[in-house]
Formats: sequence, C-alpha cells, structure tokens
Amino acid sequence: MKSHIALDPEYAQRVRESFDRQGLMRTLGARLVEVKPGLTEIRASYREDLTQQHGYFHGGVCGAIADTACGYAAYTLTAADATVLTVEYKLNMLASAQGEELIARARVVRRGRTLTVCTADVFGMQGGTETHCATMLATIMCLAGKSDRGSG
Amino acid sequence: MKSHIALDPEYAQRVRESFDRQGLMRTLGARLVEVKPGLTEIRASYREDLTQQHGYFHGGVCGAIADTACGYAAYTLTAADATVLTVEYKLNMLASAQGEELIARARVVRRGRTLTVCTADVFGMQGGTETHCATMLATIMCLAGKSDRGSG
Amino acid sequence: MKSHIALDPEYAQRVRESFDRQGLMRTLGARLVEVKPGLTEIRASYREDLTQQHGYFHGGVCGAIADTACGYAAYTLTAADATVLTVEYKLNMLASAQGEELIARARVVRRGRTLTVCTADVFGMQGGTETHCATMLATIMCLAGKSDRGSG
Amino acid sequence: MKSHIALDPEYAQRVRESFDRQGLMRTLGARLVEVKPGLTEIRASYREDLTQQHGYFHGGVCGAIADTACGYAAYTLTAADATVLTVEYKLNMLASAQGEELIARARVVRRGRTLTVCTADVFGMQGGTETHCATMLATIMCLAGKSDRGSG
Repeated sequence: MKSHIALDPEYAQRVRESFDRQGLMRTLGARLVEVKPGLTEIRASYREDLTQQHGYFHGGVCGAIADTACGYAAYTLTAADATVLTVEYKLNMLASAQGEELIARARVVRRGRTLTVCTADVFGMQGGTETHCATMLATIMCLAGKSDRGSG
Repeated sequence: MKSHIALDPEYAQRVRESFDRQGLMRTLGARLVEVKPGLTEIRASYREDLTQQHGYFHGGVCGAIADTACGYAAYTLTAADATVLTVEYKLNMLASAQGEELIARARVVRRGRTLTVCTADVFGMQGGTETHCATMLATIMCLAGKSDRGSG
Repeated sequence: MKSHIALDPEYAQRVRESFDRQGLMRTLGARLVEVKPGLTEIRASYREDLTQQHGYFHGGVCGAIADTACGYAAYTLTAADATVLTVEYKLNMLASAQGEELIARARVVRRGRTLTVCTADVFGMQGGTETHCATMLATIMCLAGKSDRGSG
Repeated sequence: MKSHIALDPEYAQRVRESFDRQGLMRTLGARLVEVKPGLTEIRASYREDLTQQHGYFHGGVCGAIADTACGYAAYTLTAADATVLTVEYKLNMLASAQGEELIARARVVRRGRTLTVCTADVFGMQGGTETHCATMLATIMCLAGKSDRGSG
C-alpha cells in the first residue's frame, strides 16, 4: 500500500467541512472517523431505519458510506481549490452487512491529474469482531478551481 | 426489451410487502411506484437531508434506490417462497442528480436460475423534464426456499 | 435511444484507421462492421484459438471486442484531433459465448466533454439466431488535441 | 491478505490442465506462472499483435489475463469435480499497459459456496520495474459436479 502526500496542508479540515455539508451523511448517522492523506474511514451505527428487508444494514448504506469514503480519500490529495465528483463505482457484497456498526475504509489506489481510482472495504463490527461485508472499486474525478460548495 | 412472465401471480403484493420492510426506503422517503413482471420504478422526492456537498441528491440515494429497484425487478420473477440478495452492482453517474424528484427504473436483462442481471436508469425530474443522471448494471441472486423476512 | 451527431464529418474513416492499427483486433480476426455516430459493431468468427476451457469463446474475446466497440462508439463523436482511452468497464456474462460468430454492438449513453459513457451488448450468432451473452458498461476518456497514433 | 487452504490436494495440476485447454491463452502467448491456494499469476510478453492503436498492450489483453487469473484463483479452492465461470468483472485502467511483459496477479477476496469474489492487479514490467496499470474486481461462479471440459 503506497503512502500519499497531501498538496494542501489543511486537507483534513477541508474534507471534514465538505463531509459536514452532506445532508445524507447526517441522515444515516455517518461519522467521518479518520482522514489521512489518501485514506478515510466512515462509520455508521446500526438503526432499524437503515435496514433492508432481512433486518441487516441496507446495501445502499454500504454503498453510500463507501462511495463517500472513496470521494474523500481522493479529496485529501487535491489542491485546496478543487472539488470531487464520483464518476462510477462498483460494489461487491461479500456477506450480510450486520453488526452494531458498519465501517467503510477507503484508500487511493492511483492518483491521477483528472481521475483518481480508489478502493473501499466495508466491515460489519459485532462485539469487537469485524466481518468483511463489501468491497468497492471507484473512479473519482477531481475538478480543479471549482468550488466544493453548492451554487445556492 | 424482452417481456417477462411472473411465476407467482401474487408477485406484486409480495414485492410491495418486502419493500415496506426496508427501513432505509422509509428513511429516504422512497416510494415503489410501479411493479410489473421484470420491471420496477422507485421514486424519492428532494429533501435537504438527502444531499451531497453541492446540494444535489447524494449518489448514495441514486445507488440505494437503483439497487433496490433492480433487486425487486428480479424478485417479481422468482417463485413465491424465495428471497433475493444483491451480489454486486456498478453505478455510473452521468449528470448531477438534481430536481424535485429522483426516479429509478429497473428491468431484468437476463433471468437465470440462480443469478439475474438487471439494469436501472436514474433520472432527475425538474418541472416535468427528466434528465438521465445515472445508470446501473447489477447482479441479483435468487435464493429459492429461503424466507424474505429476517430471522428476528 | 438518443441519436448523436458527429462533429467530424470524416469520423468513420478516422475510426477505421484507428481500428486497423490495433494489433489485437487482427489477432482475434475481429472486423469493424458498422460505424455510425455514437454506434459501432464489431464481429469475430469462431476459431479454436479464441476459446476458454469449455470450448466456447473466451470471455476475454467478449471483453476485448466490446471494450473496443465502446471506445470507437465514443470516438465517432470526438473532434478530429482527439484520441480515446478506456477508463474502466464492467462486463456481465449472461450466457455461454457460443456460436459461429460473436457480435459486439456498442452505443454512447452519455457524451461528455471529458468522459463518455457507453454500453455494449455481445451476442453469439448460431444458424441465424442471436443469443445475448454479455453486456458491458464502460467509461471512455476523450483526450482533445492528442494524437491517436503511438509515439513510435 | 487472508491465506486459503485448497480442498483438492491436486489443485495445481487441475488448474494447469484447464489453463492449457484455453485456446485464447495460447494465442496471447500467456503463461500461468504461479498457482497457489487462492492465488495465481499469469504473464504475457509484448508482441505487436497484442496492441491497441497507440502501440501499448490492448486493454483486452489486460482484461483477458486478469479475468483468467481470477477464475483460476477461485478454481484452486474448489472441489476436484467442479468448474468455474466468470459472472462479471470490472476493470479499471490505471496507466498505459506498456513494457516487455504484462503480469496479472489475482487473489481470492472471499470464497463462497457458489460465488467467489477475486481481485487482480495488472502490472507492466519494463527493465525490471513494474508499473501498476490495471485493477480488476471479479465475481466467479463455482459449479460443483460439473465437468471443466467441453461437451465435445
């Protein structure tokens, strides 16, 4: 696993401020637990209003926190005046997403000028044991000189 | 586009009951608008608590409703005593997911005994105009003789 | 299916010349059968040296001709002085890739300034009947002002 | 990276025999260099008849050897009387696939009864230096009690 160097010394604050503007992350109760150059971790605690029909975490929660973790892993490495967009991602479910907490850990696989490829692994944590329940491969686009805030 | 025949005459009720057990769909305000053999449509209205950092619908909402639409498109075609699981999906974002409403339309591309491949298109509806904002290609596993309800 | 307009009136010749420089397409015996704005079709006849272990067309042949068909579908819509690169693709196998001929049909789903999203369907043709054996969803990058020829 | 245990003590011979029946691998000059439980490595030397239009290895060669490496990584872990099929894969291109040799290294991420998820990384080797040029995430289906040979 390659280590990365952030261009912007204030990358962590920039990432956290952007995360805090995501209404969906609040709705899911998701927390941005770790932010390092090229790495992020997002966690969400189990709630009944996050489930699919069998009572486990919905795959959409896995997808949402893994996608967000990938986007912000890429965003740690951009210039200060940039924003990021998800181009695409693929999510493979490996096991039922169950437990007290869902953890998505993302890292940058290859940082490019325009496109950055990231991977994320999602784990269900139950009683201190983590089970690998999903893996994501994502392409993130970095837009230089474009605001990370909405136009509104 | 091939038309499909449902094995279970009560497929629509079965799909709707399963959808109603998904806590996340309620949380997102998602409605299952259409259920036909091999086809479903799910809609979610815009809310600030469903957004990403630019104020548009979060890609995670697109992913969650498109994944759910694919799963239930497959589920319309199973036997009555089966359940479905998402194996994997890929989501390509095509445009900002904006508008008053987000619409995911899924259809079965190929129905297999164990695996069914589905595709979904996601549109942002604004003032009566739909913009194609994402497309998904998904693999759904059908488990015969397995309950669609949780063990609890 | 949206129809597209080519920017470059000589797009078809440009696509064909590029295709003819692909050594792998010659090796696979692949022919570029159709080139229209946003659409291409590539075919390869069955040969024992294109097989996987069961004697059918290897998934790698499906992938190679579908990826190439997507790239050139995007390339029909670029300016004359551009080139294209595959960013990523996903291929779902739907059935055994068998028959006398393998046919990949690609079309542009969304044309962007930098990224173009394409889809391709692959069919095995046997005795005049086509069987849908694979489907691809691909992201193609268009590089303006960059030569489509190698540096050598 | 989890280590895996092979059920069949003669897994390596079984994998090699299956590889040798793949006409496409011979056509591409691909060699199965390593076979361990849950791991494989396949290499192909540069040839002009394996290129895309810029003179690099064609993405289809990356896809074909990575897909084959994933399938055989899964196949090392099956029972002796099984066969494997690719359900789907996604390939992200990270850099030009250039060099004297292309190397695909695959490993099993999660082994399931029916579906096994694998990942592969592809490297271009030039003068002893490897460049990471592609990464794959694949779903492989294991069919127990089904011959790995064609019906002919």
